[in-house]
Amino acid sequence: MTTNVRELAMIASLTQRFSRSPRQLNELQHSDAELLRLGDDHTLALTTDTIAEEIASGLYADPWLAGWMLVMANFSDIAAVGAEPLGILIAETFPTAMDPPAIARVQEGIHDACSACGSWVLGGDTNTGDRLQLTGTAVGAVSGTPALTRIGIRPGDSIYCTGQLGAGNAFAAALLSGASRSPSYLPTARLREGRALRGLASACMDTSDGLLATLDQLARLNGVGFELPQTWNAILGDETLAVAEAMGLPPWLFLAGPHGEFELVFALSPSVTPPHRAPILVAGRECRYIGTATERDRIVIPGVGSFGPDHRAVIRNMDPPDGGTVQAYIAELLGIAASAQDSTAS
Amino acid sequence: MTTNVRELAMIASLTQRFSRSPRQLNELQHSDAELLRLGDDHTLALTTDTIAEEIASGLYADPWLAGWMLVMANFSDIAAVGAEPLGILIAETFPTAMDPPAIARVQEGIHDACSACGSWVLGGDTNTGDRLQLTGTAVGAVSGTPALTRIGIRPGDSIYCTGQLGAGNAFAAALLSGASRSPSYLPTARLREGRALRGLASACMDTSDGLLATLDQLARLNGVGFELPQTWNAILGDETLAVAEAMGLPPWLFLAGPHGEFELVFALSPSVTPPHRAPILVAGRECRYIGTATERDRIVIPGVGSFGPDHRAVIRNMDPPDGGTVQAYIAELLGIAASAQDSTAS
Repeated sequence: MTTNVRELAMIASLTQRFSRSPRQLNELQHSDAELLRLGDDHTLALTTDTIAEEIASGLYADPWLAGWMLVMANFSDIAAVGAEPLGILIAETFPTAMDPPAIARVQEGIHDACSACGSWVLGGDTNTGDRLQLTGTAVGAVSGTPALTRIGIRPGDSIYCTGQLGAGNAFAAALLSGASRSPSYLPTARLREGRALRGLASACMDTSDGLLATLDQLARLNGVGFELPQTWNAILGDETLAVAEAMGLPPWLFLAGPHGEFELVFALSPSVTPPHRAPILVAGRECRYIGTATERDRIVIPGVGSFGPDHRAVIRNMDPPDGGTVQAYIAELLGIAASAQDSTAS
Repeated sequence: MTTNVRELAMIASLTQRFSRSPRQLNELQHSDAELLRLGDDHTLALTTDTIAEEIASGLYADPWLAGWMLVMANFSDIAAVGAEPLGILIAETFPTAMDPPAIARVQEGIHDACSACGSWVLGGDTNTGDRLQLTGTAVGAVSGTPALTRIGIRPGDSIYCTGQLGAGNAFAAALLSGASRSPSYLPTARLREGRALRGLASACMDTSDGLLATLDQLARLNGVGFELPQTWNAILGDETLAVAEAMGLPPWLFLAGPHGEFELVFALSPSVTPPHRAPILVAGRECRYIGTATERDRIVIPGVGSFGPDHRAVIRNMDPPDGGTVQAYIAELLGIAASAQDSTAS
């Protein structure tokens, strides 16, 4: 029996009656941002993303961080298609009881993130409601070389990443469980890197939902699997490894959780992969090899397990942890890994 | 002492640290949609609008209507700048307890509204939360003749409108008070009309917040006032007049309330105004004269009063009615009108 990824099934259901604009270049799920042909040499990149659950769960209790993440989550999708960011529109719902200094902190986070991205708030809308909720819609432009999409990975391609992974889950696990000091967490949309990857990478996607969800989605879309190197541990940063140690958890969990770090994962065909899969510089940033695309539809993490589509669907379907259920979530993840370990042999 | 319009003061406060994109053609508040120069002959029109309070108050209790209004409210801003609608992105927050048929009805409303506008859903995002909340971001394109803005009205210009007014407030008053059968309410973004008005109208704005708020905003931005004709009653539709009669209310209240009908209000300079301010056809729709721009900064409704900036600010600052306070809201409005009547003489 095949397990559906709940999010994908829901999106398919929500959009089943919608028809597609003749200008739209991407199919559903095929790129991080929607791609719209505007003129002979203009493609628009559009994406919308809401910060709601992360605020409700207490993960973004700092209003500045909520504002920052709103902008970065949206521009990260613009980065993943290699577009130039034209700006962002912001729809904000403020609780009536929210004090003005806290509202000002949200705006500062938005401002600081836009400045860091060299971009602008173009407009917005404000509402009142029970909880703070922020929705952004980012706009980008592509001309010349076509936009990056999630499609185009072939077995044998090398998979690279713009930075270290696991920090998003380490931040969430430490903060929500209270079991460890919360490490730093300040994702920055990899806009320059994304633009530099156009014409070079065969596919690209950001790790907004964590590495395992990203690789799972790329595996489903491209009909491939992935094998991480024996040294996959090096993908994780020192702070993440410290949280793993403090919490007594195996490090791979921080690649499997749903709270990502907004790096770009991209594929390089053998013809452009450096010898010995050495690190490469993309817009001045060192990007490292993190795995290889395979024919077999499994994600293999050496020493951990071989995750088939069903294992990954179960992981993606787990309710993300909030204050009360971090331990239960971790126990579920470990249970799936035990089953994936068994199936390595088969 | 000058009374601030609370919404304008809040937007000024929220945006005070933000700088403006060098591509952005409009200043804050100067157009219904944000205008962004993309290439030599491409201007993007962008707007974002959330449907939250209308759902929370029970005004859009019908999920289909909530979906329809989400699309129409956004495309109405695209219409008011005269842009071609390229599509809409939709961020939806569904309560976990919401049943699938109700969710499907929201999507049908979205689909039907997009079909009615000849446009498309381009992408979206879904979240879970305590209440249904919908945010749309519409994208349009303008080439050739510049986009319409709210700026350019001079004393002596004639003000026209694409349809009858008051239906939004009649719908809200009847539904929320239970005092009258609820009239039909199905706003349609005036996209063809907006495009036809480019190069003809000296300014344009939609009546999403009701006629009085629209005229007040245009008065503030252009340094003018407006005088409605003796026959202003004809602006209101039969259903609205029937609600007024059933509820025992003076009809002008339905021009003053905050729940609009999404028609376009536009200004014609004397050189393009038809003789005797006769109705004109815009994209096949009959548009009627509804007033004249004046030097004096007052909005005069014959037989009702002369509303100065402070009167209008107080009206715009009134909390919109929900189930419990329709009568209180109406009493407040009538109080302001009594004071505006006194000041007609002064």
